[in-house]
Amino acid sequence: MSASGSNLKVAILGFGTVGSSVARILCDLKPQGIELTHIYNRNISRKLADWVPCEVQWTEEVEDILASNVDVIIELVGGLDPAGSWVRRALEAGKSAVTANKKLIAFHGIELEKLARSKGGHLLYGAAVAGGIPVIPGLQQGLAGDQVMRIEGILNGTCNFILSKMEDGAEFGDVLQEAQALGYAEVDPTEDVDGYDARAKLVILSRLALRADLDPNQIPCRSIRDVSAIDFAYARELSCTIRQISRAEIRGANLATGDVLASVGPMLVPKASPLAWSRGTENTVLVGGKYGGDVVFSGHGAGGHPTAVAVVSDVISIAHGSRAVDLPSRKTTIGGEFLLRHSIRFVVNDQPGIIAEIALALAEQGINIHAIFQKPGFGKGNLPFVVTVEPCANSALKRALARIGAMKCLLEKPFHLQILEPEETAG
Amino acid sequence: MSASGSNLKVAILGFGTVGSSVARILCDLKPQGIELTHIYNRNISRKLADWVPCEVQWTEEVEDILASNVDVIIELVGGLDPAGSWVRRALEAGKSAVTANKKLIAFHGIELEKLARSKGGHLLYGAAVAGGIPVIPGLQQGLAGDQVMRIEGILNGTCNFILSKMEDGAEFGDVLQEAQALGYAEVDPTEDVDGYDARAKLVILSRLALRADLDPNQIPCRSIRDVSAIDFAYARELSCTIRQISRAEIRGANLATGDVLASVGPMLVPKASPLAWSRGTENTVLVGGKYGGDVVFSGHGAGGHPTAVAVVSDVISIAHGSRAVDLPSRKTTIGGEFLLRHSIRFVVNDQPGIIAEIALALAEQGINIHAIFQKPGFGKGNLPFVVTVEPCANSALKRALARIGAMKCLLEKPFHLQILEPEETAG
Ligand SMILES: NC(=O)c1ccc[n+]([C@@H]2O[C@H](COP(=O)([O-])OP(=O)(O)OC[C@H]3O[C@@H](n4cnc5c(N)ncnc54)[C@H](OP(=O)(O)O)[C@@H]3O)[C@@H](O)[C@H]2O)c1
Ligand SMILES: NC(=O)c1ccc[n+]([C@@H]2O[C@H](COP(=O)([O-])OP(=O)(O)OC[C@H]3O[C@@H](n4cnc5c(N)ncnc54)[C@H](OP(=O)(O)O)[C@@H]3O)[C@@H](O)[C@H]2O)c1
Repeated sequence: MSASGSNLKVAILGFGTVGSSVARILCDLKPQGIELTHIYNRNISRKLADWVPCEVQWTEEVEDILASNVDVIIELVGGLDPAGSWVRRALEAGKSAVTANKKLIAFHGIELEKLARSKGGHLLYGAAVAGGIPVIPGLQQGLAGDQVMRIEGILNGTCNFILSKMEDGAEFGDVLQEAQALGYAEVDPTEDVDGYDARAKLVILSRLALRADLDPNQIPCRSIRDVSAIDFAYARELSCTIRQISRAEIRGANLATGDVLASVGPMLVPKASPLAWSRGTENTVLVGGKYGGDVVFSGHGAGGHPTAVAVVSDVISIAHGSRAVDLPSRKTTIGGEFLLRHSIRFVVNDQPGIIAEIALALAEQGINIHAIFQKPGFGKGNLPFVVTVEPCANSALKRALARIGAMKCLLEKPFHLQILEPEETAG
Repeated sequence: MSASGSNLKVAILGFGTVGSSVARILCDLKPQGIELTHIYNRNISRKLADWVPCEVQWTEEVEDILASNVDVIIELVGGLDPAGSWVRRALEAGKSAVTANKKLIAFHGIELEKLARSKGGHLLYGAAVAGGIPVIPGLQQGLAGDQVMRIEGILNGTCNFILSKMEDGAEFGDVLQEAQALGYAEVDPTEDVDGYDARAKLVILSRLALRADLDPNQIPCRSIRDVSAIDFAYARELSCTIRQISRAEIRGANLATGDVLASVGPMLVPKASPLAWSRGTENTVLVGGKYGGDVVFSGHGAGGHPTAVAVVSDVISIAHGSRAVDLPSRKTTIGGEFLLRHSIRFVVNDQPGIIAEIALALAEQGINIHAIFQKPGFGKGNLPFVVTVEPCANSALKRALARIGAMKCLLEKPFHLQILEPEETAG
């Protein structure tokens, strides 16, 4: 019920994948105290659905909704604009807003939450990270009493779909096409495969879990485009698989005394880690607390219905007068790099002295070789092999690889992956 | 902050494992707007701790706290009485209460929540199920918008510790002793190993997830005491392990049209299931929603610090004015039995005709044999083997086993385990 005790009037803005699922759940479950009054979309006539009760107004005039007595707008249009300005105007008018828009929340969430509070409304965005998995309410309600030191997650279902198919033997390009055909990947897959979608989610989680307010543009992102099938073969030798991992960690006793490290990109993940277990479009989030230890959440991180569950849950929370716990965060700059073991894949025209030259270039950067793996079945003229190195910073390794890159015998640019080992972080 | 805008005054009742961890976190993290004012225990002089600020009053007079201006009592004494009456009196006085007491919430939660609401206070119990894993806030805030059809969980850390050690080869009695020495199991382990602790937690989860208010005494509970090392050897043949599983499920479209099935006890769990992955005292909860699919939560379900995280999180929620979403539940009786595959372990003095006789007794109850396994290395005079049967009700199998139990060749009572297969439920 709204403040006045009557039904909470809600309007859906954007009747696409998530918006239509939200309407579907509201019409099916009819949660007590909630009344769907409007559905907005551009060119609305294409969208009309006969399972929506006739009392609901279909409109292509967003202004009508913003000027109406609607209590909550559910923003499912996506993107920074115009969606952001609609949310802002609704909050300014004292309405509440629920959104699944991670980009908007990553870039403008703090300001919008402040606005909501100052006007007496609520801004909830449980669907913005990991869709139907209640990580955000888990952090706000259930883990607020811990001091979270670390988050590691599989936050992008498209990348996970691609990489888990590659684990079964497919090549990147083929799986990307399949993902596009299935509607899991956009025609322009940049946001997903290059890590920007996951990065926005990591920013939101860092804010809620680590209380660190990071600038998305500062977080190093690496694409999964360069991962190839042979990398999975070598990963298996190391009892690992490869996943797009988003991680952030406080180095030191707490945020006030320590730095934050963060990154997004493909990593070697030990098969024993819960992060190696998600397949298909599943998401997994691990939250490491000082007092409560590791908590793992997993499930369907995307898709209309799972995402809609999180949206409807937020609307129900507002109807029940449940306010989001306001966890104060502080502006934080990334304070260094993870110090991790790496594996580096080379493809060479084999000749004497190659390992010596590689070892020298690594040693110049203070990096020690840990092991060398070579899978049988390749000729000397086109020989892939993998070198693992002891924990080092990515930047040092890149300097070494820049030198190594000039070696004549290389048939491909060397490709390196960090190995996920939570204990080894420092630097 | 309390309603008046000043600090929320909180008192800890019971300074044992969880109570002292709660005090520790409150003293370390000093969450904004929360002031620890009292610590109560019987014979308090034994309990004084120098790391607690001197403003905090130590007392053995609970009446002083109930009569004081404390806003929230944190009940960590345990048991139905006197803890229950203290919670009741605090709520009657308009205070809020936070508790980790699953027994109290399983048996009296609904009445106490109603009382809290009528007096303007809150009753939160996020720590009562799965300790530091935010399953309860996840259900109340994050999954309220789904229609949950099924819960499966590893809810008792003691049983999981025992069974995961047995998986590595130990025998029940030895591990129980080890668990007792480590403080994981009570001197009288009945509540844990016989399933009553897990049952109380299942009742709470069923209420919040399925909206079914079950009578704990109606839920069939089976002890893990009869599981032996040989059962793990046969489990491996079936690509399974053995875990204490608590489960409840709605059979039909929803609670209004369907029945609820529920049980607690040892089961064969396929190694591919997330429920097979928790080791040691870890807990895991799987929530299956109609719209959002399966969501899995796992982490430390017990222990002072993880449990205290949930308690402190609840206090923070109250301080932030965040009310628990009040999910209406309805009184529900258990409406049947799970129809599942079973495995039955026999130990016999081998002679011709044994399988025929067993098959006949099973067939009389309409139960078909699926497969027979016999591990090599045993003599005919003391031969263990395992029979798996097609999906059937536990009660039918028990009738068959009662007849089979009279067979002279049996050296031990046959021991059966259900096989966890979510898809096969009906009956
Ligand atoms: N899909 C998921 O699995 C998922 C998961 C988590 C979060 N989200 C987030 O949820 C939001 C919605 O995603 P979605 O998958 O539902 O997207 P979608 O299917 O593309 O739906 C967006 C809807 O908004 C409409 N729209 C777009 N721009 C508009 C504009 N400028 N003016 C008016 N209407 C406009 C679109 O209309 P047209 O049909 O005319 O284009 C479409 O109906 C996004 O923020 C997304 O990041 C999605
Ligand atoms: N431990 C866990 O991992 C865990 C996890 C989840 C939930 N919980 C729940 O949390 C609650 C507390 O558990 P715990 O492990 O902290 O138990 P505990 O270590 O036994 O602590 C209970 C405390 O309450 C005191 N107490 C007991 N009965 C009392 C009475 N009649 N009057 C006054 N004081 C009394 C005890 O004092 P004495 O020292 O004099 O006995 C002790 O200090 C229980 O409801 C339990 O089910 C515990």
